[in-house]
Amino acid sequence: MESYRGFLALLVSALPVGFLSVLFTLIWVLHYREGLGWDGSSLEFNWHPVLAVTGFIFIQGIAIIVYRLPWTWKCSKFLMKSIHAGLNGVATILAVIALVAVFDFHNAQNIPNMYSLHSWVGLAAVICYVLQLFTGFFIFLLPWAPPSLREFVMPIHVYFGLFLFGTTIATALMGVTEKLFFVLKDPAYHSFPPEGVFVNTLGLLILLFGALIFWIVSRPQWKRPKEPDSTLLKSNCDTTERMEGAVAISSGNNTDRSDSELNNEGATRKRNSGLDDVGQRSTM
Amino acid sequence: MESYRGFLALLVSALPVGFLSVLFTLIWVLHYREGLGWDGSSLEFNWHPVLAVTGFIFIQGIAIIVYRLPWTWKCSKFLMKSIHAGLNGVATILAVIALVAVFDFHNAQNIPNMYSLHSWVGLAAVICYVLQLFTGFFIFLLPWAPPSLREFVMPIHVYFGLFLFGTTIATALMGVTEKLFFVLKDPAYHSFPPEGVFVNTLGLLILLFGALIFWIVSRPQWKRPKEPDSTLLKSNCDTTERMEGAVAISSGNNTDRSDSELNNEGATRKRNSGLDDVGQRSTM
Repeated sequence: MESYRGFLALLVSALPVGFLSVLFTLIWVLHYREGLGWDGSSLEFNWHPVLAVTGFIFIQGIAIIVYRLPWTWKCSKFLMKSIHAGLNGVATILAVIALVAVFDFHNAQNIPNMYSLHSWVGLAAVICYVLQLFTGFFIFLLPWAPPSLREFVMPIHVYFGLFLFGTTIATALMGVTEKLFFVLKDPAYHSFPPEGVFVNTLGLLILLFGALIFWIVSRPQWKRPKEPDSTLLKSNCDTTERMEGAVAISSGNNTDRSDSELNNEGATRKRNSGLDDVGQRSTM
Repeated sequence: MESYRGFLALLVSALPVGFLSVLFTLIWVLHYREGLGWDGSSLEFNWHPVLAVTGFIFIQGIAIIVYRLPWTWKCSKFLMKSIHAGLNGVATILAVIALVAVFDFHNAQNIPNMYSLHSWVGLAAVICYVLQLFTGFFIFLLPWAPPSLREFVMPIHVYFGLFLFGTTIATALMGVTEKLFFVLKDPAYHSFPPEGVFVNTLGLLILLFGALIFWIVSRPQWKRPKEPDSTLLKSNCDTTERMEGAVAISSGNNTDRSDSELNNEGATRKRNSGLDDVGQRSTM
């Protein structure tokens, strides 16, 4: 129960920080910039930070921790994989529209594309994210990949997903830096104008959201417990023993236990599970 | 042996990428900028990227993976902790001098301090890094902390160390972005001048170095094996069975084994080790 409360505390910290990041981005473009539009002007550019922070940071962060929500442990692995893939799919669509907005704006204003480090890293991150999405779809969601292939790809999928999330956050911080140096001329950024302080705070919120997501996903005691293979393709949610059992496994005195004991528990779970268990560990 | 070769391949990828990052930074300030000096001019500022990339990225990265080097497994845990702390200490000193250089330059040129997101995140990272260093020194290096305290702090120490490393990389990418928009006026950054392309490439190298360090440190099969408590305070390196045994444990058919099997091995190691084993897992 302690561990469950700890998880809830982290979750109700992470979600508002993520919401605030999106809200701050909206306030930035609606209050401090000219607003939103789709006419090749800076109004169109403004969709870029809004969609990038909403999709590529907030929704991607939720997709990473979706297996950790204890009340979803009663749901089948297949349903959770579908939700994980669906959230990442939505994030991809928003990230691609965010790219279209900035390319469209640049082309309309005769501004060259792809010269900054932000653009290099950002485009690479979107391309890798799409590759990651398709790899995950074909290898973990569809039932045809052999278990040995899933086993081989899983650590790469987990690592690459988290690395891309970190890279996305770094890209957002670069983008914020770039934009503020562009637009804050009078008063200048170095004179601490309200917009500069506000958007710096947005940068800190994004970093804090990332920190909370990384903490949640790297705690072994909050992993989704194994489930019987027979439920693999069930797409509904049971409301019976599985959830209660899972919570019981996860709670107890986890917060007082050593890392090694927790890893032991994880190892025991894995020993008891089939190879298909690989599928549910796609967020570590 | 396969796993050992895999580790070596990663290491001989990471080290040159780290060296290249430092080299590119030196070429940037010596060839494209005015060089180095300590006179309040931009020559003094130029120490900032050189020391930050050398200390706060390259040396910090090495400090993170130092426990993973198989040929150090013959050395006592205390010696390795001392090297880990020493490298982080050197990184801290270089990071602080990097801060002094930029504050000194700003003050000499009447440029305000601490207005950009880069400066906010960077200063916070240095302060947290110093706190992390002192916490590690008093709790893990000195022998007085009770095992229960070490156990409690270890996951936080590991997580916070890796989060700070990622934050440092994001800060460097923001710094590169900020500097290029400042100095590239004629020819402008958007006209793809050689300096812009060169320093963007430096940014990619820093990101790649981070990716390789994170991959090395997050592979369970490359963890330093447990060692008997009796060797805890031995500061020399044995050249006998311990090393051979450790390599034998680590090699075998690791590359073909599942993540769960590897975790089982890790759990078994931990079951057999005392609480003091906590100390050697300070880089995951």
